[in-house]
Amino acid sequence: MNIAILGASGAVGMQVLKCLNERNIKIDKLKLLASERSAGKIIKYNGNDVIIEKTTEDSFKGMDVVCGAAENDIAKEFAPHIVKAGAVFVDNSSAFRLEENVPLVVPQINKEDIKKHNGIIANPNCSTIITMMALYPINKLSKIKNVIATTFQAVSGAGVGGIDELYSQISSICEENTKKGYIPKDDGGANIKKDLASKTFKYQIAYNVIPAIGSFKENLYTTEEMKMQNEGRKIMHLPTLNVTCTCVRVPVMRSHCISVSLSTEEKLDLNKVREEITKSAGVKLVDDVANHKYPMPLSTCDKDIVEVGRIREDLVLENGISLFCSGDQIRKGAATNVVEIIEELAK
Amino acid sequence: MNIAILGASGAVGMQVLKCLNERNIKIDKLKLLASERSAGKIIKYNGNDVIIEKTTEDSFKGMDVVCGAAENDIAKEFAPHIVKAGAVFVDNSSAFRLEENVPLVVPQINKEDIKKHNGIIANPNCSTIITMMALYPINKLSKIKNVIATTFQAVSGAGVGGIDELYSQISSICEENTKKGYIPKDDGGANIKKDLASKTFKYQIAYNVIPAIGSFKENLYTTEEMKMQNEGRKIMHLPTLNVTCTCVRVPVMRSHCISVSLSTEEKLDLNKVREEITKSAGVKLVDDVANHKYPMPLSTCDKDIVEVGRIREDLVLENGISLFCSGDQIRKGAATNVVEIIEELAK
Repeated sequence: MNIAILGASGAVGMQVLKCLNERNIKIDKLKLLASERSAGKIIKYNGNDVIIEKTTEDSFKGMDVVCGAAENDIAKEFAPHIVKAGAVFVDNSSAFRLEENVPLVVPQINKEDIKKHNGIIANPNCSTIITMMALYPINKLSKIKNVIATTFQAVSGAGVGGIDELYSQISSICEENTKKGYIPKDDGGANIKKDLASKTFKYQIAYNVIPAIGSFKENLYTTEEMKMQNEGRKIMHLPTLNVTCTCVRVPVMRSHCISVSLSTEEKLDLNKVREEITKSAGVKLVDDVANHKYPMPLSTCDKDIVEVGRIREDLVLENGISLFCSGDQIRKGAATNVVEIIEELAK
Repeated sequence: MNIAILGASGAVGMQVLKCLNERNIKIDKLKLLASERSAGKIIKYNGNDVIIEKTTEDSFKGMDVVCGAAENDIAKEFAPHIVKAGAVFVDNSSAFRLEENVPLVVPQINKEDIKKHNGIIANPNCSTIITMMALYPINKLSKIKNVIATTFQAVSGAGVGGIDELYSQISSICEENTKKGYIPKDDGGANIKKDLASKTFKYQIAYNVIPAIGSFKENLYTTEEMKMQNEGRKIMHLPTLNVTCTCVRVPVMRSHCISVSLSTEEKLDLNKVREEITKSAGVKLVDDVANHKYPMPLSTCDKDIVEVGRIREDLVLENGISLFCSGDQIRKGAATNVVEIIEELAK
């Protein structure tokens, strides 16, 4: 299989490369494509040096699959050339996700949709993948009607820039305090609130949470928040699913968490829910509160699995269940899912 | 007025002292009480030295008000002696909150309940105070029926030990990485995941979130989570209010945030909701998403106000509203509320 990665130098592109290697995908020819800025950089893959090339309209000739790990505008610019070259474009941007002829796929949930592709297969939003991974075993038992979700999203969701921004802020606060011999105490936050200049995020993210990801739509939800409903409906084949989502950035490096309340058509037995999660692919039941076991970002970071726990009866919704889930948004929320789609294509 | 602080050396006790000073409460006699361990320490108050005394059964003679800033067992041990001495015990522990003869008070919401006290007035749970502060203006317009809440709770909610633990973990990670010349990059979290030994929290809290605060009850909710329903009902005089709450610890120093979906008896106009919040005491409308204004912990830390924003129609609940709020849990979530109760007592 000849595989190209579009946007190879970013956090998702690099992770796609790692996942291809880890999963022993047989690659005859590997092309790493990026902007002019990254062209010429050398990346090690499986013991060989691969040079990043500048993407052009002609970059895709002879490729079987192009993994899209670039922004929407880049995806839109090159998609026609990828399709024309006869390759399948497995795209992680949001450019094509809701287009009718484009399957939006999480292989564990709707791999049969892959067959309907016309050259483009879309990879869903990270928080949506992780949440739907937690919900699909429940949906098998009884159709999900409503979801109320609040996310805890890691800074790496904003790419390497997000990682750098959190780490730099934390470091500069730390160094400044160490210099003056600061001993941690309750000073009302004076020693950690620095209104640090922010490029990637609107405000200081160190020791803060920011309840806004994406741009605001007319209904006062963000683009990121509406993805959970719009993409969730398409992936789960639940066209009337209602989702209220609040997306919040937290000072975590890797792995998103989502607090979920949901309602199903019929009332479910919680032990059956746990059983179904246990036997489902790609998810891991971590729900032993007596022994302090529940999903956390540090437990899922750099792993392909989505952890699901804190399963209990919801006290508001009819036939309601509350749960908490966590997954690495650069792996299962992006790169791993792309590679799993490629594995399905290769079958 | 003669005022004693029980548990004066902790984060809440010290903040009560600050709030008494800031609000110019006239104190004739001030007594700082703590355990034997802290006895003898000298605290500056209003230019004078005050020595912390060891608490005994006789400590409360001549006091008008005792501010409780200690754990449940201490509150239970000394409450009878406080009442016997003729003082009013304004207690921040959860020991008496749900007792029938004990008013549970947020002055902006139910100050009239203070009159019914028999020597003890309870201060509610921090997340509950902050959430109810955001909800009471809405409840004035139409009764709230249901609440689904997810909290983002700062480490200082666990006292000075929590602050110390987060700061020490962050510092040790930072120092170790600086030594080896680490440049922030997407390394799958390898350079921040250290499984650091934890005393205050069950797991490393630096760069993590922990979805468990308090101990687990039979219904698989934590004690902290059930406070939102049990205490919320009593404060708001809404005996049938249903609350699903998920409490999550985040690596933030001060100020809790809460993501809320709620339903009211009648459908409300969102602009009327914003107007009502604007004219209500103790809350501040921060809801201008076009200009990136929304509540955040770094904006409310060390302030007495609760910020409310991200107000929008809920996409799941009937007559539903979604919002996000933030407040300093050591101030309005604890000490400020205690002092506001004392101000009402002094009227």
